[in-house]
Amino acid sequence: NVIYYVYIMYIVNSCVSTDRPKVAFSAGMNEEIYVGPFNTDTTLIYRTVHTNVGSGYNPNTGIFTAPVKGVYQFSFTTHAGANFSTFVILVHNINHLSMISDWKAMDGSNSAANSAIAHLNVGDQVYVQLYRGTHIWSGLHSSFSGMLLFPL
Amino acid sequence: NVIYYVYIMYIVNSCVSTDRPKVAFSAGMNEEIYVGPFNTDTTLIYRTVHTNVGSGYNPNTGIFTAPVKGVYQFSFTTHAGANFSTFVILVHNINHLSMISDWKAMDGSNSAANSAIAHLNVGDQVYVQLYRGTHIWSGLHSSFSGMLLFPL
Amino acid sequence: NVIYYVYIMYIVNSCVSTDRPKVAFSAGMNEEIYVGPFNTDTTLIYRTVHTNVGSGYNPNTGIFTAPVKGVYQFSFTTHAGANFSTFVILVHNINHLSMISDWKAMDGSNSAANSAIAHLNVGDQVYVQLYRGTHIWSGLHSSFSGMLLFPL
Repeated sequence: NVIYYVYIMYIVNSCVSTDRPKVAFSAGMNEEIYVGPFNTDTTLIYRTVHTNVGSGYNPNTGIFTAPVKGVYQFSFTTHAGANFSTFVILVHNINHLSMISDWKAMDGSNSAANSAIAHLNVGDQVYVQLYRGTHIWSGLHSSFSGMLLFPL
Repeated sequence: NVIYYVYIMYIVNSCVSTDRPKVAFSAGMNEEIYVGPFNTDTTLIYRTVHTNVGSGYNPNTGIFTAPVKGVYQFSFTTHAGANFSTFVILVHNINHLSMISDWKAMDGSNSAANSAIAHLNVGDQVYVQLYRGTHIWSGLHSSFSGMLLFPL
Repeated sequence: NVIYYVYIMYIVNSCVSTDRPKVAFSAGMNEEIYVGPFNTDTTLIYRTVHTNVGSGYNPNTGIFTAPVKGVYQFSFTTHAGANFSTFVILVHNINHLSMISDWKAMDGSNSAANSAIAHLNVGDQVYVQLYRGTHIWSGLHSSFSGMLLFPL
């Protein structure tokens, strides 16, 4: 009987562990203003948090820090204004994952988006960087979101 | 023996409940026409359904209604035509989640995309709204999709 | 006792099978060059692989082949250059899922994105196709990613 009990507890634990950890965040900007241009490359800060399950995203720094090792998907969008170019990179630690760029918009402005999937270790950081000398038009056009697809 | 049977049934149920519910939809527009401008803000209707697991999306209204409480991810895209601006919002009940805009396109046209992750209760609605006085060019450029990331 | 053992093994197998299979890929282009225009419709090849869990994506052909039956989400992005239009389609076997297009960019260039969710059988193929006579500007602007949402 003890052996059965041990078996059963083992099974219960296996079941529980198959429920994947939950990590997802989504943030935007809620002021309709230009951000940049700056003299140095600058991390964009999306202060309006819609979702932050797992608390990986820091709305004071704009940086997502992976709470668990796994494969994550990230999306980001920008809106380019009129007088400067836009040049924005999704960065994983120091690696460039994907990019949006747009030249001076003679027709006023353009929305754009990009995304990537990456392996992250615990503590790895992912953020959106605005290149020096370029700018975006913020507001609900600008978003940064991510989610854990599965742990590794 | 009855006690073991009860234990085992409990475990089976636990296992089954760890299999997350499945909700995902994806729809587009298959007519190459202008949609809008209209005199009032108008919900865009994506009539060509690629996927609708969980039956949350209604292709007659363009509205997704959450079948389970949870965290969902949504994506939408538009294509701007030449003679009017485009101004499109992703709406959760009455809250604006994210936006695409584009001014009159002097260079012909532009594709754009945005996305968001949000907590939804059962019955919450998410849809894409076209602002009054603006338009999009429909067809496969225009898509609206969503998925349950995990229940809460 | 044998009966209990069989029950328990059944339960263990059920538990294990609730852990969804893991499939996700993400790839970009790392050369900053024009791709196209070509005389025929051409599959775009994203040679820089960030992630390829499940090995469904082939960086030599640009084609993702589904390793399991299920519902998948795909995203792709392009960047349009100046002298030709861009016309890019996400294809599932022979079906068109979604599209990005951009006319000759008088204001230099534009980034764009689209996505779709689709049911795939084992062996189904998904890829991004560049229409004949059009081109993209490659580099980190161009990405193709996909993930299994859940098996069927």
